[in-house]
Amino acid sequence: MQRYFVERDAIKEPFIYITGDDCHHISLVMRMKPNDKVYISDQTRSFIASITDIKKELVTLEIIEELQEEKELPFNVSIAQGLVRREKMEEVIDYITELGATSYIPVVMSRSIVKVNLEQMEKKSTRYAKIAKEAAEQSHRLKIMDVKNVMTWKNFLNHAKDYDLCLYAYEASPKDDSLKQILRTKKYTNILVVVGPEGGISDKEVEDLKKNNFLPISLGPRILRTQVAPLYVMSALSYEWEAKE
Amino acid sequence: MQRYFVERDAIKEPFIYITGDDCHHISLVMRMKPNDKVYISDQTRSFIASITDIKKELVTLEIIEELQEEKELPFNVSIAQGLVRREKMEEVIDYITELGATSYIPVVMSRSIVKVNLEQMEKKSTRYAKIAKEAAEQSHRLKIMDVKNVMTWKNFLNHAKDYDLCLYAYEASPKDDSLKQILRTKKYTNILVVVGPEGGISDKEVEDLKKNNFLPISLGPRILRTQVAPLYVMSALSYEWEAKE
Repeated sequence: MQRYFVERDAIKEPFIYITGDDCHHISLVMRMKPNDKVYISDQTRSFIASITDIKKELVTLEIIEELQEEKELPFNVSIAQGLVRREKMEEVIDYITELGATSYIPVVMSRSIVKVNLEQMEKKSTRYAKIAKEAAEQSHRLKIMDVKNVMTWKNFLNHAKDYDLCLYAYEASPKDDSLKQILRTKKYTNILVVVGPEGGISDKEVEDLKKNNFLPISLGPRILRTQVAPLYVMSALSYEWEAKE
Repeated sequence: MQRYFVERDAIKEPFIYITGDDCHHISLVMRMKPNDKVYISDQTRSFIASITDIKKELVTLEIIEELQEEKELPFNVSIAQGLVRREKMEEVIDYITELGATSYIPVVMSRSIVKVNLEQMEKKSTRYAKIAKEAAEQSHRLKIMDVKNVMTWKNFLNHAKDYDLCLYAYEASPKDDSLKQILRTKKYTNILVVVGPEGGISDKEVEDLKKNNFLPISLGPRILRTQVAPLYVMSALSYEWEAKE
């Protein structure tokens, strides 16, 4: 069944009103007809709804059933990554949305090989949001991952104060506590994990992270590239929290 | 430090002899000189060695130190995947090598959207092996993942008899035992995990898998695409086996 995300005010029970791109998608791309059923989420609730009317700019649906689904990780997980090439960044956004991340934060870090063009990056934000939306639909998530605007290192360290657990993936940390040990000491609900850019996290940045109460974690004994590390983190968290004991 | 894989007979202690592509890479690409140090693995042992002589067709090294490294997963894990587009397959080979897989098996499955051209696939085997070798070097693995030739469904079911635990990722299986529960019942040393192609595993294939003692596992409540599922499996296994308790 086709899945669509709507704003909360699009739902006026028992009806749902769809406009814009999704209206176009329902009528012209999918060529749906009245009585066809779709899945609707407003990111807090989800429904099965049946189409009652299709107009050029407005599709009207009637709610058939509210769904009780557990599709989201039990805690918020944000992945921050040193700025990487656009294609890599898009792939990471796509894959970690599918794996359940809450938000993605591109961060200007000293060893990034990508030149930072803040203006251009902000222009791309619509594209990144679209990738996250489509990946959320594809993976049957209830929520869309939030792709934040690129942050400077200083702004990022300040932003990190909003989390109750801050971690950084660091290959030189096998002797420190493992991700498993950290997760099992206490229940954290808002977790931030930093992954370096292609060139890794610099010594100065490690110093800053430590000063700001970030803990180093090892992602196994092999060296993971920057686009693979976030996938490891998200998979491990799903396995820890979502696989039955 | 640059890393090279050699055949076992290239090592005649205390010397190591490198020919072919890697000889070319050392002398012409990296422009190394005598006394430069490299990392050498023959897939069972690994060494730090110092270059003593560089000739056009032969680089001679002397072993400085044998390394005792734990870079490999404690058990063998093979990922079998319904045939997918070449770029996706190359990415999966690349990423799961990095995540520690033992072998990758492309399998002809009924819902694959890729046309099977066995002859062309076998021609590509050198390329796949090269991707696996480079990913092994990049991730500092001791072993190179083995990319098998494409198997028919029937041959694959027969091949599966070589494993002591056979699993298949199936979205409709959250009520079955979880991967965690299965791994903790007993110590398996040779594990095979099947992931469907883009279109998923067909009902007939599920029947065949069950008849051949494959167990279904869920990879969390979200729907993962075929290129993401193997990464989840490998990350979860590393987390289960390699993260300190």
